Amino acid sequence: MTRDNHSILDCTIRDGGLVNNWDFSVQFVKDMYYGLSEAGVEYMEIGYKNSAKLLKGADAGPWRFLNEDFLKEVITNKTDTKLSALVDIGRVDEKDILPRDQSLLDLIRVATYIKDVDKALDLVQKFNGYGYETSINIMALSHVMENDLNEAFEEINKSPVDVVYIVDSYGSMDYKDIDYLVSKFQRLLPDKKLGVHMHNNMQLAFSNTIMGASKGVQFLDTSVYGMGRAAGNCPTELIVSHLKHPKYDVRPVLGIIEKHMIAMREKWEWGYIIPYMIAGVLNDHPRAAMALRSSDDKDKFVEFYDKLTSPEVMPTNHHSD
Amino acid sequence: MTRDNHSILDCTIRDGGLVNNWDFSVQFVKDMYYGLSEAGVEYMEIGYKNSAKLLKGADAGPWRFLNEDFLKEVITNKTDTKLSALVDIGRVDEKDILPRDQSLLDLIRVATYIKDVDKALDLVQKFNGYGYETSINIMALSHVMENDLNEAFEEINKSPVDVVYIVDSYGSMDYKDIDYLVSKFQRLLPDKKLGVHMHNNMQLAFSNTIMGASKGVQFLDTSVYGMGRAAGNCPTELIVSHLKHPKYDVRPVLGIIEKHMIAMREKWEWGYIIPYMIAGVLNDHPRAAMALRSSDDKDKFVEFYDKLTSPEVMPTNHHSD
Repeated sequence: MTRDNHSILDCTIRDGGLVNNWDFSVQFVKDMYYGLSEAGVEYMEIGYKNSAKLLKGADAGPWRFLNEDFLKEVITNKTDTKLSALVDIGRVDEKDILPRDQSLLDLIRVATYIKDVDKALDLVQKFNGYGYETSINIMALSHVMENDLNEAFEEINKSPVDVVYIVDSYGSMDYKDIDYLVSKFQRLLPDKKLGVHMHNNMQLAFSNTIMGASKGVQFLDTSVYGMGRAAGNCPTELIVSHLKHPKYDVRPVLGIIEKHMIAMREKWEWGYIIPYMIAGVLNDHPRAAMALRSSDDKDKFVEFYDKLTSPEVMPTNHHSD
Repeated sequence: MTRDNHSILDCTIRDGGLVNNWDFSVQFVKDMYYGLSEAGVEYMEIGYKNSAKLLKGADAGPWRFLNEDFLKEVITNKTDTKLSALVDIGRVDEKDILPRDQSLLDLIRVATYIKDVDKALDLVQKFNGYGYETSINIMALSHVMENDLNEAFEEINKSPVDVVYIVDSYGSMDYKDIDYLVSKFQRLLPDKKLGVHMHNNMQLAFSNTIMGASKGVQFLDTSVYGMGRAAGNCPTELIVSHLKHPKYDVRPVLGIIEKHMIAMREKWEWGYIIPYMIAGVLNDHPRAAMALRSSDDKDKFVEFYDKLTSPEVMPTNHHSD
């Protein structure tokens, strides 16, 4: 493995917020930032830069609707670790985005389904004009048809976007899928950096991430103790331990887990949990499994499996969030 | 992946017993056997065939000291799923072993460190003479020097042993190690079947197992819900879901987990737990981590990490069990 060609992007605050409705204290986010900095992690995604005005019923904390004045109170001493924010199509108000030289943010990532790639690239164009690094994160790739992807690539190649992400939204991919997709993206997007964002439904997030890294993928998404929606993500502590560059140090990440994450995991649920494993195996959105885990039937695995595999049940709608 | 070239060997009762001192009810073992049979699993390891006389202070249940009369009361209706038992060098009394035609067991596996391969092969010779299928499971391969392994291979090639196992005792291997070792074993043991027994310290047990399978390894060790010592093993439910042969069905495995394993996991601990992850990353025996988890300091990860990585601390002894 090349030793210095990767950027770890920790998205605990952003993706983990999907678990606990962004119920993170300022102290936790500070500890996360300075701990990741010590660990040598290159980027921390500190939340969503969506607009509360555009999201009905939104009651989540500041990490879902990042505000620059607030951010400056939290990150009072910026380190070499860059900050990123994610935006969703149709949920971001461009007027909220300051030029980069007035912002603590360095990278703005746009999450999109394949059908909205054009809209995502319009946003990228604007953020790029403001001076930000940009990425486009194509979600639910395991449900995308080849011809749609090829069309999207043509548009992406015309865009100034820096990084294109392979997102395993359903945690259904294994090493063969990563091998295939990374090769395809490299061939068809020769001038773009690539990233991987893996979910852990089948305990393959770390394995898939190092497989991508070994093929030359530059951006590796992780979260501390794997905290993220449903089965969660590739654990930061594993990637920091695995990569050979001497700047990486797992010790501060262990400190964050010890101080915060064990108690958080007792309060909130993520990780290898059988209904999420079933959803991953079936290449299905975790929505049904998340609903099950919030119900009294949360451990009725066989009934859940029968329901999802019954030929009489229509597939769930994969495009509503 | 070839679709019918693999044998799944579930070792929940044997390796899982290291977690709970074999505190398994007869009903649980019956449910396990008939559930695995329905799932299409080819082998179930029902315990150790060690001798209580040779193990000081042994107070564990019948699954550690399998007795044929007792076994016949448990497995009253044998299916296509074969039964295996593990023996440890120096802990098995050969007089306890019946000829295969008087036994419910089909396969006897001998666990050995590299230094005892000769002793292991002596046992294999006897069990083979009794009509059993046999395997030799070489533990702690990540601590074995190449020349010792080459010498062992010469002896193994002269032996009637059917299966030779690559055992990642410390959960420290990744896909590159599996690729390297499987290729080496295939080259130097051309007439033997191979097996993999992986531990899950770094969430790589499933990934390493399917990597081995894709290279042609026939015997794949698993345990239901990953139950096994320390970080546990490759989960049976993931392998049964992954392999393409139509005989495999994950549904009965989900039934075992729902009925038994969720409650068991609340009572006993195994899986992705930070001190085991640290031991895996450091390629170290889980002994120190297991001691930590039994102490009041069980979540003091940084202190534990510092202790294991301090240059003043001598490495632990890797040969005492």
